[in-house]
Formats: sequence, C-alpha cells, structure tokens
Amino acid sequence: MTGFVSFVGSGPGDPELLTLKAVDRLKRADAVLFDDLSSGPILGYAHRDADLVGVGKRAGRASPKQHHVSRLLVDYARIDQRVVRLKSGDGGLFGRLEEELDALRDAGIPYEIIPGVPSANAAAAAAGIPLTRRMTARRVQYFTGHDVTGNLPADLNLDALADPAACTVVFMGKRTFPQLARALIARGLPPGTPAILAENVSTPDQQITRTDIAALAAKLEAGTGTNPALILYGPLAEP
Amino acid sequence: MTGFVSFVGSGPGDPELLTLKAVDRLKRADAVLFDDLSSGPILGYAHRDADLVGVGKRAGRASPKQHHVSRLLVDYARIDQRVVRLKSGDGGLFGRLEEELDALRDAGIPYEIIPGVPSANAAAAAAGIPLTRRMTARRVQYFTGHDVTGNLPADLNLDALADPAACTVVFMGKRTFPQLARALIARGLPPGTPAILAENVSTPDQQITRTDIAALAAKLEAGTGTNPALILYGPLAEP
Repeated sequence: MTGFVSFVGSGPGDPELLTLKAVDRLKRADAVLFDDLSSGPILGYAHRDADLVGVGKRAGRASPKQHHVSRLLVDYARIDQRVVRLKSGDGGLFGRLEEELDALRDAGIPYEIIPGVPSANAAAAAAGIPLTRRMTARRVQYFTGHDVTGNLPADLNLDALADPAACTVVFMGKRTFPQLARALIARGLPPGTPAILAENVSTPDQQITRTDIAALAAKLEAGTGTNPALILYGPLAEP
Repeated sequence: MTGFVSFVGSGPGDPELLTLKAVDRLKRADAVLFDDLSSGPILGYAHRDADLVGVGKRAGRASPKQHHVSRLLVDYARIDQRVVRLKSGDGGLFGRLEEELDALRDAGIPYEIIPGVPSANAAAAAAGIPLTRRMTARRVQYFTGHDVTGNLPADLNLDALADPAACTVVFMGKRTFPQLARALIARGLPPGTPAILAENVSTPDQQITRTDIAALAAKLEAGTGTNPALILYGPLAEP
C-alpha cells in the first residue's frame, strides 16, 4: 500500500502565505480535501488532474459530517492515492485534526503533519502589531467562542480569559462575543480594553477594525455578518 | 526615500517551512538582519550580493543590544535599502517586534509584517499531535519562561497556567521549568500531566521527548543543554 496523507496547514487564505512544503505537497497530490476557508487561489497549486473535494464546515452552512471526512481520507489512501488534507491556518489549532489522525491510525495509514501560518498570527500582522508585548502581554491565549451546540462554551476559564495582562484571540466567536464580553467585564476586565475584529484575514476582502471590547460587543449584538473573523483583545500595541 | 523593511517570520528552522512571501522578500532584499535561530539554510534564499547581518540573541550568548538592532534597521532603510528583518518562528510571538516597529515608526520608515509558522505549531506537528483537542484542550496559551533577568517571571498568572483543560506552550523555559513545575503542582496540576520537550524543532537535530511535568522538571534540574526548545504540557493527545 502506498497511500499517504499530508495534513497541510494552508495559512489564512493568501496563497503567498503557503509554505514551500505545502506547495510541494499540493503539486504532488492525487486528491486534495479542502475546507471552504482554504480554497480559492490556493487550489491553483494542485495538479490539474487531482481530485479536489470540498469538505468545508463553514459556520452556518450545512457541511459533511466529520466522520465522513475521515472516511474519505481513509478511502483515498486505501486506493494508493497521495492525499492532501488542507486545513486553513494551522491544522493543529481548532482544526478537528485529532479525529482525522485517529481514523488514519486506526486504519494503519501513514501520514505527516505540515504546520501552517495560523490565522491568529496573520491577523496580528495585518493589524500591524505583535501578539506579545515585552512588559504588558507576556501570555497569549487562543480559544473558540462556540462549542458543538454553537453556544459560548459553559466551561470557559473566565479568570484566565479576563486577565488584563494577556493577549487573547477568539476563534469563531463573533456571535457569542456580546455574552463573553459581559462575562469578562463582570470579572473586572475594563470595558475599554482594546479589541480588534479581523475579518477575511489576508484576502482581498480583509477588514481590520480597531475598537474596544464594550464597543465591539455592541457592534456584534447588532449583527455579525458571515465573514470568517477573529477577535483579539487585551493590552494590544498601537498599530 | 525608497527604503523599506519587511519583518519576516522565518518559521521554526526548516527552510521548506518558509512562506512563498518570505522567499520572495529574501530574494529581493539588499540586506538581511537575522537571528541565530533563523539562519543557516534559510539565508541561502537571499541574493548573493545582499548584506547578511547576524543580530541574534540566542540564550546564553553575548549579542547586540536591542537598540542597536533598531538602529541598524533605520540606517539601512535610510540609504534606500530593501531590508528583511528575519525573525524565527512568527515575529509577533516573543520576537521583540514592538521595539523595532516603534523605531521605524519614529523614523518615518515604511514597513510590512509577514507572519510565519510559529515554532509552537511546528513542535506540535513534529510530535504528531494537535495543539487543541475538541473536548479537553479548548484553550491554548503561550508564555515565556524567563523575564529580562533570566528568571521565571514574578507576575505569572499561575491559575491560568495550572488549568488542566488548557494546552500550554512554554517558550525559552528549560532552565526555569523545575521551578515552574513545582508552582503548577502546588496549584493542583497533577505531576503526571503529559509534557513534551521539543528541541531544535524542524531541523536535522530535532528531538521530541514525551514525558510528564514532574519527570521533565527532574530531567531539566539535572541539566538543560543549550538546544533551543519549547515545552508543551496539558491534556496532550497521544501521538
């Protein structure tokens, strides 16, 4: 059996933020399984004869079940295909990587993991700021703003998230941010804490909005739109 | 004036983990200022006529002062050079980026920030695991294990760092880890909490050691060596 799966972090969306290794694997793939967020121009690097299979789980849209994605990976590898499983950003961050790794391990199929530029790092770069600051933001933390039901997770460590000395990045958290901001402010995080809404990072539709947590909560309460977005808050540097 | 500075995240060390944009900027640079950790084969992408200037701050070695690096950036840009400031991993994570951005802003010199693959994400990929886990590690946090004096920072948020439901990555923390581990265990984090020591990530000398926080503390108490390393701990997935 020669089937092999490369889990490839595709970066935030700009094809120029692919790694050399990612491009190499795309060029040599027989099949590419991709999420919506990592599609578009990035797929242009795939061989023209490769199967391109969309398996995206974009918020709010119907999408294949996770076990179906794992099944597809196994099936392609079993017919001796070189498979690229493209995951937006870095696949190890909120990418549901573990379920797919488990499926391959159970099936005895070899794989590799190629890290990518996480959208969080790209968002900070686009905003012109570092994620860490030497004296004031020496801890960085990432979490998701929704659980499997789409709600704010019930077991958040709010003390950690309301720490005024950390830079926090919320993945997939636009809809639940008003509720989160209320909880953070109740724990003592000042309403004027700087915040950035980073939408469509590194794409032609990129939009970076600099505000504070209270104003951002009010804005998102009034409507979130459908753009994929990250929220950064904390003692953010001036751009 | 046509001087311009590109802050380029070089990734963890493997030149194949450079982004396409990083390679483009390296090829077009008149001068490349690099840290030790991002040197070696990566510099092979620079033009053969480019000035290659080592300004590394590798732990334990004498190195140029930070203001000297900022000064060099400004001086090169003022003589109309295209400058690449190469920073290992992603420059926005513990890369002292802010000081250099401030210096360029004060001098009125234009710049861009190109994100890179952080060493933390590369370490997890090398260990064969995701950084996040759907039910058990929904928060990820990064911090540095030493302050400007080389000691464990006095103002760490130990409650956040001892959270058994977070995956934590310690940057530059080998020497202080025994002290940190004692503090974490005193806060209730089990001594058997999985830990990974990831040294020389993505280079030919890469070494991934899977252990637990108590055993890792004992190992590092006996000696740390000089390899650049990250420590991951928390409810880490099985590789």
